[in-house]
Amino acid sequence: MARIVQKFGGTSVADTDRIKAVAQRVKAEVDAGHQVAVVLSAMSGVTNQLVDYVTKMSPLYDAREYDTVVASGEQITVGLLAIGLQDIGIQARSWLGWQVPIRTDGMHGKARIKAVETEEMERRLAASEVLVVAGFQGLGPRNRITTLGRGGSDTSAVALAAALKADRCDIYTDVDGVYTADPRIVTKARKLEKITYEEMLEMASVGAKVLQTRSVELAMKQKVRVQVRSSYSDEPGTLIVDEDEIVEHELVSGIAYSRDEAKITLVGVPDRPGIAAAIFGPLAETSINVDMIVQNVSHDGKTTDLTFTVTTADFDRTIAVLEGKKSELKYAKLLSDKNVAKISVIGVGMRSHAGIAQRMFMALAEKSINIQVISTSEIKVSVLIGEEYTELAVRALHTAYGLDAA
Amino acid sequence: MARIVQKFGGTSVADTDRIKAVAQRVKAEVDAGHQVAVVLSAMSGVTNQLVDYVTKMSPLYDAREYDTVVASGEQITVGLLAIGLQDIGIQARSWLGWQVPIRTDGMHGKARIKAVETEEMERRLAASEVLVVAGFQGLGPRNRITTLGRGGSDTSAVALAAALKADRCDIYTDVDGVYTADPRIVTKARKLEKITYEEMLEMASVGAKVLQTRSVELAMKQKVRVQVRSSYSDEPGTLIVDEDEIVEHELVSGIAYSRDEAKITLVGVPDRPGIAAAIFGPLAETSINVDMIVQNVSHDGKTTDLTFTVTTADFDRTIAVLEGKKSELKYAKLLSDKNVAKISVIGVGMRSHAGIAQRMFMALAEKSINIQVISTSEIKVSVLIGEEYTELAVRALHTAYGLDAA
Repeated sequence: MARIVQKFGGTSVADTDRIKAVAQRVKAEVDAGHQVAVVLSAMSGVTNQLVDYVTKMSPLYDAREYDTVVASGEQITVGLLAIGLQDIGIQARSWLGWQVPIRTDGMHGKARIKAVETEEMERRLAASEVLVVAGFQGLGPRNRITTLGRGGSDTSAVALAAALKADRCDIYTDVDGVYTADPRIVTKARKLEKITYEEMLEMASVGAKVLQTRSVELAMKQKVRVQVRSSYSDEPGTLIVDEDEIVEHELVSGIAYSRDEAKITLVGVPDRPGIAAAIFGPLAETSINVDMIVQNVSHDGKTTDLTFTVTTADFDRTIAVLEGKKSELKYAKLLSDKNVAKISVIGVGMRSHAGIAQRMFMALAEKSINIQVISTSEIKVSVLIGEEYTELAVRALHTAYGLDAA
Repeated sequence: MARIVQKFGGTSVADTDRIKAVAQRVKAEVDAGHQVAVVLSAMSGVTNQLVDYVTKMSPLYDAREYDTVVASGEQITVGLLAIGLQDIGIQARSWLGWQVPIRTDGMHGKARIKAVETEEMERRLAASEVLVVAGFQGLGPRNRITTLGRGGSDTSAVALAAALKADRCDIYTDVDGVYTADPRIVTKARKLEKITYEEMLEMASVGAKVLQTRSVELAMKQKVRVQVRSSYSDEPGTLIVDEDEIVEHELVSGIAYSRDEAKITLVGVPDRPGIAAAIFGPLAETSINVDMIVQNVSHDGKTTDLTFTVTTADFDRTIAVLEGKKSELKYAKLLSDKNVAKISVIGVGMRSHAGIAQRMFMALAEKSINIQVISTSEIKVSVLIGEEYTELAVRALHTAYGLDAA
């Protein structure tokens, strides 16, 4: 007997027929004698609809109320799956974030899980009951609903798997694993049998939407064995594992891209110590994550330009915060551009090989693609380019690093 | 300064523009110096959609999971209104049933409110914060969400008004008051300025969908001054008051109808003491309300036929329960008919006037409408007829009792 956490994303629970199919997948594990906890997302499209309602009510919405609204999506799917399981003879009960409870901090819209209370869950599992847990949501301070940010259900699943000491955490998605690049763009992309936590982390953070970044961080920290697999087949997917489980490394594991980027430039910022803190402090307080940052060399010794990126979801709020602080920050002009994409090359092999970034720059230059911003990490190089070059760049890089399938 | 509870139904919060209009109505009361608690339903159509999902998953659904699913509708509207109020400068916070909490019994799908905890609510009202409370839902035993039955938001509003000792409970709907009959059917129907709690109770219980039955019971018991009024105009609506507030009574106040009825007949039931308890006991245990009941005279001294009605919503479950008990109940045959309607004549004037039922039977006979079942109360006479005669019957009765507008 094993203990398994299964997580199903939005397309896997898109309608009642799909939810019935999920019930069958859960039943298969129960019939095999396993204890099962299931984590669900909202029906695909529902969360977007809810976010749309919120922004229509006010672009500068209260994140506490945003959380109340958007958390309703998972509430629907967990209730329906519990009914679907009971209908085929499986004992099951739904659990919302506040019912478990999954305790989080008070960072509404991007909350972090602090603790998952498992006493009642253990009792139910021991009584052969399937736990159907709402992903994406938790209980924050002062009895308010919190959400974990888009894709947060992955994090819910990994956190639950860690808390319950599950043997496996299977993430069912509409792709059958992790690929060297998005197969919709690169027809020669290959499925990876295994990938390290670190590589997966970089891929998640740069827009490969297979798993939410935090879920991978958490899996790495808690050593949760995660498998990304398809809702539509029984084929094995991609295992996310420790580096030492992978014998032969490729130089680069994958090419990722993200279109959810917006570039903001503050022109003529006073070039004085503490100016970066003055700019980014208010953004951090508003829970806005700033990604790539470039500060130009000061031309006149007095002012400089500062460029950075935020997600398009945070764009309006970022502009509002910066405009509100204009008199304090004393910048001359605010420029912004949403037509950008971030392209990233990822691989643990980079640690021991030189010239990987150079190969990227050359491949993009050959296609006459202008690089606007560069950022690097130990196992990743990212560049910001014009959005219309996204596919061209991803394909060129996939070929340049020898990733194309034979 | 007064304390006001405002309740808005589904069509009043059907989309974000409507919710913004609700925010303006709330603001008007706040600007007038009042303390305001708002109770909301789900967007119109949403609850039906959710119920449809549930029945698609399993017609014999678990009521606890049904409640989890359907309670998500109000969660959306309260969050959106809180955002909308903040957007126009009004302090506001949303409250779900479990957050208030509004404590109920464990009768899932039809729960009754046991207590509304007001300590935190009082504190917020004193701090000039508008309470935006999810209607229809509460917190049952064992930390599960409960719902109060269709139209339960009215009950939530009255219960909140009673608990907060509000001066008024304004129920905003898409009609501008209580009419002598459904104006969509009877063009000569008139709006009533006042109606007694008791009459309103009978009208609600027989399908006049203006207010949920329990909300009227509760208002009567707690002496809550309820006003039914239109979301679209500032005209006064209909006040629901004590009988002694109404000086001149009409004989009959209104004609109501309900199409949500299903007739079930058990043929050849053993005619023995305790048989009714044996039949209706299991239905009551499953929270199925049985309405009109007729037991025929036994022909052979051994068996009899038993006819009763349930709501169409309970129909499938009723059949399932009865078929499950067939060997025990020993009936020969189960007949059922969903094509029936219940027509009711209501008025406190009935208490002191004879012949009111007789006038009803004559009016229906003149139109050749066959009466299938009859039931009476102190201030109401109801008959079950073929559904296709609904409009004809309502119009004929409206005329027969002299209710037609000049």
